[in-house]
Amino acid sequence: MTLQNDLLLRTARGELTERVPVWMMRQAGRVLPQYRAVREKAGNFITLAKTPELAAEVTIQPVDAFDVDAAIIFSDILVIPEAMGLPYEMVETRGPVFPQTVRSSADLASLRIADAESDLGYVLDAIRLTKKELNNRVPLIGFAGAPFTIFCYMTEGKGSKTFSIAKKLLYTDPNFAHVLLRQITDSTINYLKAQIRAGADLVQLFDSWAGILSPEQYRIFSLPYIRQICDAIAEMENSVPLTVFAKGAYFARHEIGQLACNIVGLDWNMDPAESRALVPNKVLQGNLDPCALYSDFGQIRAEVKQMLDVFGHQHYIANLGHGIYPDIDPDKARCFVDAVKELSGV
Amino acid sequence: MTLQNDLLLRTARGELTERVPVWMMRQAGRVLPQYRAVREKAGNFITLAKTPELAAEVTIQPVDAFDVDAAIIFSDILVIPEAMGLPYEMVETRGPVFPQTVRSSADLASLRIADAESDLGYVLDAIRLTKKELNNRVPLIGFAGAPFTIFCYMTEGKGSKTFSIAKKLLYTDPNFAHVLLRQITDSTINYLKAQIRAGADLVQLFDSWAGILSPEQYRIFSLPYIRQICDAIAEMENSVPLTVFAKGAYFARHEIGQLACNIVGLDWNMDPAESRALVPNKVLQGNLDPCALYSDFGQIRAEVKQMLDVFGHQHYIANLGHGIYPDIDPDKARCFVDAVKELSGV
Repeated sequence: MTLQNDLLLRTARGELTERVPVWMMRQAGRVLPQYRAVREKAGNFITLAKTPELAAEVTIQPVDAFDVDAAIIFSDILVIPEAMGLPYEMVETRGPVFPQTVRSSADLASLRIADAESDLGYVLDAIRLTKKELNNRVPLIGFAGAPFTIFCYMTEGKGSKTFSIAKKLLYTDPNFAHVLLRQITDSTINYLKAQIRAGADLVQLFDSWAGILSPEQYRIFSLPYIRQICDAIAEMENSVPLTVFAKGAYFARHEIGQLACNIVGLDWNMDPAESRALVPNKVLQGNLDPCALYSDFGQIRAEVKQMLDVFGHQHYIANLGHGIYPDIDPDKARCFVDAVKELSGV
Repeated sequence: MTLQNDLLLRTARGELTERVPVWMMRQAGRVLPQYRAVREKAGNFITLAKTPELAAEVTIQPVDAFDVDAAIIFSDILVIPEAMGLPYEMVETRGPVFPQTVRSSADLASLRIADAESDLGYVLDAIRLTKKELNNRVPLIGFAGAPFTIFCYMTEGKGSKTFSIAKKLLYTDPNFAHVLLRQITDSTINYLKAQIRAGADLVQLFDSWAGILSPEQYRIFSLPYIRQICDAIAEMENSVPLTVFAKGAYFARHEIGQLACNIVGLDWNMDPAESRALVPNKVLQGNLDPCALYSDFGQIRAEVKQMLDVFGHQHYIANLGHGIYPDIDPDKARCFVDAVKELSGV
């Protein structure tokens, strides 16, 4: 049961390590031709995510292709609304769409707190199967969306540049917003605990839309719910390390660094040195501009070297500052991973 | 020729004033029913922008409706690509689209440096007409997009969440990027100088997509060109104050504050007190969350009060942190303006 490569977990726990661990957000996905083949076979995204055998297969693909130091379970943050009673559809080129939305207290009646085993068993099965098939090669990362980001989709009903419908509710009906956020939070705690019991070795919270909030609103409508999740996971028996990645919430780095999490994820706008100063007591993860992987191989190595120079080689997990873009050459992704390994080794 | 209300200009020049001046980005536009009537009459956005009589009419509408301390000429930042030889179309619900794009040095052959009088005469005519019809009630603001933002549209061809095509070019063909940025910069300098000669009392640069760049790339591909524009405007005879509004470029506030501009615009993510510390020597402008105008009247006043408390009442121009959203109740916009006036007066 011992992991052959537990570098990520040792780093996550704050230990000094022989080199910097590396993985890539969205590494299991369209960047790999072998993913696109499985996706084709499944017919659509949601079927792929709901079929544990296929989800496990695409989860492991980047471990083979890129030799990354972790796998991350193939799934979507929007499984939580669905498990709460609000199903979504994935529309090609448009992204996720919710046929129904939740915009008032009356709409809450149709929702429930998600029960992980009964509502999200397919993700837990995928985690168990992936763990088995990974055969202890590398740790498996589980994840969920942060409550405010999930709130955005459940109220807005689709992606948006401004999420002005979601944000409007924070001003016009804050009580409703807090009730829904609490339900999402409780569902997410159930879900992450179940992921950990199913075998996830580390979990990450994605607050993808953190950056649309003012600092003041972030402190009211996002941070308290992330805090509840961090506390619940930290207090559970046989817990695992937790990462908080709040894209765009540069203004909240210091406060995020004071949560009961182990790792703080940074997007590519966030200056590494400044982030170290704001978050002195956590492991940092990030943050190469995903577009840097359009560069040639030599330049990617140079970008990685510079990133390692500013972050340092300890208490640090190398990653991109956002999910890898689907049109990146897989050889460039491999170059990124290899460069981290070569340039950060002792 | 003396302005009846020159509060904005006195504040812009760094003078102490009797109250805080206020206007709203996108105040001339869809938020007003009387705008939508003129837009209907014109048939489409581009015709409206190109007809000086109509552009002047909608420019003045918010001065009447909201009693703001400035008018801003009704136009679009994408008139510059068109004046350089790259026309755009405005597609309902999708936004601007460029049938042709510029993605390599070969594509540059079809472009020219814009000559303001011959290529953008309709904007200059609209400015002259607006000045006449405003009859010195309030100052008139001119504007242009910052070169990097214009570069994004010219290369990507349309709006995008990531502008990954535009950003890819920064990595794969930086020489091409710099040549195009220089052409845009030269065109923009011609354009802003002509706006000032036509009567603009203040000009604002919008770097709407600043936030997609890493701090390092911002220093290479955006800031130097904004600097050239600031210097050129500062050095011209009978110059006017200049505002730089770089949405999302929180990491560059200190450097923007050292440019030859008078005013630094802030989006709603940027903390006012922190911004004052980073930009101690400029007038600040901003930054209420545009969604705050969905609140009720009492809460809007409370939000304005809090904003005035943190910015202080001097060296400050009240505004939203982004353009007003089209579905805001005009009475709420008026409430915002009135609250600034009442709560910041001596």
